[in-house]
Amino acid sequence: MTDAATTTATAPADRIEESMHDDLATTLDPERAHALDRAHVFHSWSAQAALDPMVITRAEGSRVWDGQGREYLDFSSQLVFTNLGHQHPRVVAAIQEQAARLCTVAPAFANGTRSEAARLVASHTPGDLDHVFFTNGGADANEHAIRMARLHTGRHKVLSTYRSYHGGTHLAVNVTGDPRRWPSDHASAGVVHFFGPFLYRSPFHATTEAEECQRALEHLEQVVAFEGPGTIAAVVLEGIPGTAGVMVPPRDYLAGVREICDRYGIVMIADEVMSGFGRSGRWFGVDHASGGAGVVPDLLTFAKGVNSGYVPLGGVAISDAIFATFAHDRYPGGLTYSGHPLACAAAVATIRTMEDDDVVGRAAALGDDVLGPGLRALAERHPWVGEVRGTGAFWAVELVRDRATKEPLAPAGGSSPEMAAVLGGCKERGLLPFTTDHRIHVVPPLTTTPDEARAGLRILDEALTAAHAAA
Amino acid sequence: MTDAATTTATAPADRIEESMHDDLATTLDPERAHALDRAHVFHSWSAQAALDPMVITRAEGSRVWDGQGREYLDFSSQLVFTNLGHQHPRVVAAIQEQAARLCTVAPAFANGTRSEAARLVASHTPGDLDHVFFTNGGADANEHAIRMARLHTGRHKVLSTYRSYHGGTHLAVNVTGDPRRWPSDHASAGVVHFFGPFLYRSPFHATTEAEECQRALEHLEQVVAFEGPGTIAAVVLEGIPGTAGVMVPPRDYLAGVREICDRYGIVMIADEVMSGFGRSGRWFGVDHASGGAGVVPDLLTFAKGVNSGYVPLGGVAISDAIFATFAHDRYPGGLTYSGHPLACAAAVATIRTMEDDDVVGRAAALGDDVLGPGLRALAERHPWVGEVRGTGAFWAVELVRDRATKEPLAPAGGSSPEMAAVLGGCKERGLLPFTTDHRIHVVPPLTTTPDEARAGLRILDEALTAAHAAA
Repeated sequence: MTDAATTTATAPADRIEESMHDDLATTLDPERAHALDRAHVFHSWSAQAALDPMVITRAEGSRVWDGQGREYLDFSSQLVFTNLGHQHPRVVAAIQEQAARLCTVAPAFANGTRSEAARLVASHTPGDLDHVFFTNGGADANEHAIRMARLHTGRHKVLSTYRSYHGGTHLAVNVTGDPRRWPSDHASAGVVHFFGPFLYRSPFHATTEAEECQRALEHLEQVVAFEGPGTIAAVVLEGIPGTAGVMVPPRDYLAGVREICDRYGIVMIADEVMSGFGRSGRWFGVDHASGGAGVVPDLLTFAKGVNSGYVPLGGVAISDAIFATFAHDRYPGGLTYSGHPLACAAAVATIRTMEDDDVVGRAAALGDDVLGPGLRALAERHPWVGEVRGTGAFWAVELVRDRATKEPLAPAGGSSPEMAAVLGGCKERGLLPFTTDHRIHVVPPLTTTPDEARAGLRILDEALTAAHAAA
Repeated sequence: MTDAATTTATAPADRIEESMHDDLATTLDPERAHALDRAHVFHSWSAQAALDPMVITRAEGSRVWDGQGREYLDFSSQLVFTNLGHQHPRVVAAIQEQAARLCTVAPAFANGTRSEAARLVASHTPGDLDHVFFTNGGADANEHAIRMARLHTGRHKVLSTYRSYHGGTHLAVNVTGDPRRWPSDHASAGVVHFFGPFLYRSPFHATTEAEECQRALEHLEQVVAFEGPGTIAAVVLEGIPGTAGVMVPPRDYLAGVREICDRYGIVMIADEVMSGFGRSGRWFGVDHASGGAGVVPDLLTFAKGVNSGYVPLGGVAISDAIFATFAHDRYPGGLTYSGHPLACAAAVATIRTMEDDDVVGRAAALGDDVLGPGLRALAERHPWVGEVRGTGAFWAVELVRDRATKEPLAPAGGSSPEMAAVLGGCKERGLLPFTTDHRIHVVPPLTTTPDEARAGLRILDEALTAAHAAA
């Protein structure tokens, strides 16, 4: 088959020849890809029999192509991770170069690419979060952060919010606040959930952001008091809660959490897996706190945007105080691929590209100039849109049946004919949206151009109009 | 600096230029690599202050080079994962080709490289383990396997052996049997440990393999009876326990476990993370069972050798019966990088290379012709060697102070001057060994030549002689 991507291959002809003929040649056939997927691939978070996955054969920048050669604007960044877009040449080149040089070494050794990736991560994390423990993704980053907090404090309980997602492994999904934890939740030993601020559906009957903030902090203070401050190792929360609905915290909320943690010697863990590395228009979600002054957590977890997901990588950035706990006592945790050189090479190229091209500034401008105004205009026109909210390249469109009752257009963890119509309408028109429950998240690559963003918003507009007319 | 690896780079000159100058250039300096490692990299399973990690700048086949240009034979396969050795050109080419084509897509889509990797894995797993859920590594593979078993059976308890290692995340390390689980073990809700067979240190006072086997099965049967068969979701055990000491199970043990699981509707999970993909001289450790007839578990977890660790990848191979449980009901688990195309490209090239070059047969021969005889000869000469055992490229040398008392040469989870002398002697002479507690594991790449293996054994011999003489 013809595939434009193969013509951009940068390996020399004999290598491609060998590789293509022996190893990857058959993988370019989309029908075979689909048939083998259905025969052998077990998919995340799904009933397997019902699946009919779209084959992606090619991707570049803000666009992907399916098995029929149809082009889509990617407003999902896949799972909110291709922050530099697809196939960024600098990151591809770094992966190829590192592959040629040294694909991998064990974590016990030192390696220049890993060292440089750690330096670059530490240069952007806030405060003294200068020690980096690399993992394979966000889930294990959160698992290890919680272990560090427990051992650092000698306490066991972990507090996290109900509207949150922290990963799919056992402890990470127990800490998660959404219904995906239920099937794996057996009293979640040591995990206690509380409510974070969310004015649109305020758990505190607040009517202003300031009131929501104050009441949310009072609530956390009470949960801490009743659980017993001396039993609590950590408060885990996303810098900006992502999958649960892109809820930028009120201005003073994170500083309030920081103060409560300080008062009781509780470790503050910021999960920046989705909100980190420029997604929000700042390097990290916590950088927005206190009007941009930022808040420094004790541990900060990351993945996804750190290397645009080109190679699996996550990690924990660690404060000096917590590092000191493991300076002379062994940290009892690890993993085979910690600091994998190939993954770190992708991180080095990604972070340097973000620095050189002011990608974070571009994400902020995309939000301020295009996505924010565009989505607010869309909200005015469409009765199903209950609220739009976000920052940078990180937005949620909350779809409701009725703006007064705020009844969601689809149930939690499910879909509805109306939601399916909106999504189908987007895909028909060449837009890949990110959806969760009754929301559409607008989370394109940070490198999306204003014109691309406007084109995507137009499709979303049309899809909403068509679905509403048909309902 | 000059580095032979860079001259083999296969990206065209302008790409290398861009990549090297902008992004990876500084990473080639070993002094900078070491200094930045000490400043910013938090290492697995370690007290951080005491670390002085060796810098690895280059690797090829069975050899690695440190920052001073010293060459070492790699008898560790790093962490028992570079089964094809370092920088295998076919795997490197596949990674480069996939990087040029499409680094990544989200798990919800289908992708030809992922499909082909799943097909290839399924073509080698035993029985009907034909459905593959890809993860990032071995720990999350085991976490997901246990979740599948719990949901499939509707039961909660998991039985695993005391001498085992199943990963570093919370549930995986709780299931682990060695002392590394203690710091994270808070009654390990639902996890029950039992004793597996290990004749050299028999928990059952047995004197023959057959007796050890029979008593170990009686013991498991009793644990099952007293825990309540109807409460037990799964028995988890390594096909051949690895880190705990490379203990090839007695001939009929795994068939006996299979029979107990069948009798009580318990899911049998074989952890083949270390023992799989040819390490043992068969494709999987369970293939050795019953004199080579093999035993088919219900779930089989893998990582490491599946792609020689060139890109982080793990997974669970799933039987038809367990797949059916999630055909119409949603599997409540997932991860961002499930079936990552770049990782799957490395798996495709690795498995095809193993097929084309009979790498599994070569590993078997390496064990039968060189490592087995060589280690047994070494055991005869050295009073510290209590036992050597293994198969293929998977061997343990058990070092003891006294062959009668079998007192280990170093305590569990620690070291001793004698062990340090052996290890230091190996490294001085240009051999990288894999050590754990009082054991040296001889686990070179499966592609190690007989001459390389003999050279490594000579160094081990000399290091043992020197350390014993100095003690």
